[in-house]
Amino acid sequence: MLGAIEAGGTKFVLAIGPAPDAITARHTIPTRDPAATLAEAAAWFAAQGRVTALGIGSFGPVELDRGSGRWGFITNTPKAGWADCDIAGFFARSLGVPVGFDTDVNAAALAEYRAARGEGCRSLAYLTIGTGIGGGLVLDGQPVHGIAHPEMGHIYPRRSAEDRDFRGICPHHGDCLEGLASGPAIHARWGASLSQLAPDDPAHAIIADYVAQACHTLFASLAVERVVIGGGVAKTAGLVERIAARTAELGAGYLPGGARHRVHSPHHGDNAGITGALMLAEAAR
Amino acid sequence: MLGAIEAGGTKFVLAIGPAPDAITARHTIPTRDPAATLAEAAAWFAAQGRVTALGIGSFGPVELDRGSGRWGFITNTPKAGWADCDIAGFFARSLGVPVGFDTDVNAAALAEYRAARGEGCRSLAYLTIGTGIGGGLVLDGQPVHGIAHPEMGHIYPRRSAEDRDFRGICPHHGDCLEGLASGPAIHARWGASLSQLAPDDPAHAIIADYVAQACHTLFASLAVERVVIGGGVAKTAGLVERIAARTAELGAGYLPGGARHRVHSPHHGDNAGITGALMLAEAAR
Repeated sequence: MLGAIEAGGTKFVLAIGPAPDAITARHTIPTRDPAATLAEAAAWFAAQGRVTALGIGSFGPVELDRGSGRWGFITNTPKAGWADCDIAGFFARSLGVPVGFDTDVNAAALAEYRAARGEGCRSLAYLTIGTGIGGGLVLDGQPVHGIAHPEMGHIYPRRSAEDRDFRGICPHHGDCLEGLASGPAIHARWGASLSQLAPDDPAHAIIADYVAQACHTLFASLAVERVVIGGGVAKTAGLVERIAARTAELGAGYLPGGARHRVHSPHHGDNAGITGALMLAEAAR
Repeated sequence: MLGAIEAGGTKFVLAIGPAPDAITARHTIPTRDPAATLAEAAAWFAAQGRVTALGIGSFGPVELDRGSGRWGFITNTPKAGWADCDIAGFFARSLGVPVGFDTDVNAAALAEYRAARGEGCRSLAYLTIGTGIGGGLVLDGQPVHGIAHPEMGHIYPRRSAEDRDFRGICPHHGDCLEGLASGPAIHARWGASLSQLAPDDPAHAIIADYVAQACHTLFASLAVERVVIGGGVAKTAGLVERIAARTAELGAGYLPGGARHRVHSPHHGDNAGITGALMLAEAAR
């Protein structure tokens, strides 16, 4: 039996299953301070019977360098109490099993890649548009870390002519993608979620354009075959279709990957992250 | 002895050497129609004595999928006569040796990666800013193809407030990076090359900003450790330093790769592409 944690800033999703696509038990706990949260998670796994390996997809920033003494740590997060938290080490010690570890979005990308590879897909990015914006990337089956890990929410989209005055809410970059198109950024200028705004509200096209620019950038700079769009904002009716259409406009038929480039919703829905965390457990076993 | 070709739209650089960093003979021919150009290149190699393998870094678009019957082809280029040219097949047949094949910019990225890996670098992008703008990418020693190959010149940078009126020269995208910052785009609005403009001309900061946005995008979306900037425009005095400084401003100290992200000029200077083509030969041997 494999165990998995999708460690988020507001909740931890815990699951066990004999294989990544076979979750047999699942539990969600609120994220409090590390001591209370990690102990509650460990107790839940202990009550499920023995797991042979654990996979963790975590909020970040995290240390993914196996050569670092801090591998498996959440590093310099502003989230109170969580900076320098040895989350992988905690579970390796408390459960006595090998632990696989990556970002939450790389875990989700792994799960979506697994679903897509049967159709011949060999490269895939996963973007989550929610409280924050982040992205994971899998090329030829391997999650991409680079020198640390991608922070795709912090690229700078070109501003929409209909959205010139908003300064953006990212404390680091102002009007980067996360500063413009995350859930809190949408609330900040329209006082509502995108789902609450009328279908003909210009906000839909504006947000679709910003996310589409990120998709085009991934297609052009990496030639990644697919971009999967998850997260709470992406559940807005019609939004992913708008993003896909706008991405095609931006490409203008030029890219050599052509119509094989696709933008779509997650095959795994809300289970992409936890499914990917089970894949991390399987690989660590 | 290895053979190599850097196949460009205006010239072919030919070289032989016993190893990638040991070029023993080198020759440049103008790019004419495929029949004349390829025959002249093959004759030069034949006159050098036997090579055991050939590497080609080519202008594109190209077919890099080993599973395709058109692997090693230049595909739908607008360059007269070159569409559907089986360049790898021509040399495999005429020289009777195994042929390695990739984009010119992936070849250059391979050569720069080879130079950087001694310093612990495991991910690198190579951007060329010249007649066109293109990019190659190497992660953990492997060139990235995605579904075809990157076309990094066709991302959309945010427009500079001091450069609002120029429409850009890309026939597909107008004011994409290539449409704004390539050599012909610089000529189109300032009537001169960047090197010919005074050091305090605003053009320097404008072009540096556009290229810096591409560098920041690669750091944020891929966490690639380094971006190496080559090509004719990049020889403008001070430009790469301006790009590096502006990229750091855009990152605002946020990215987890921190100061390990670097923007610099090619270790191999103008030899990056041909050195990488020799590496493609070495790998094919």
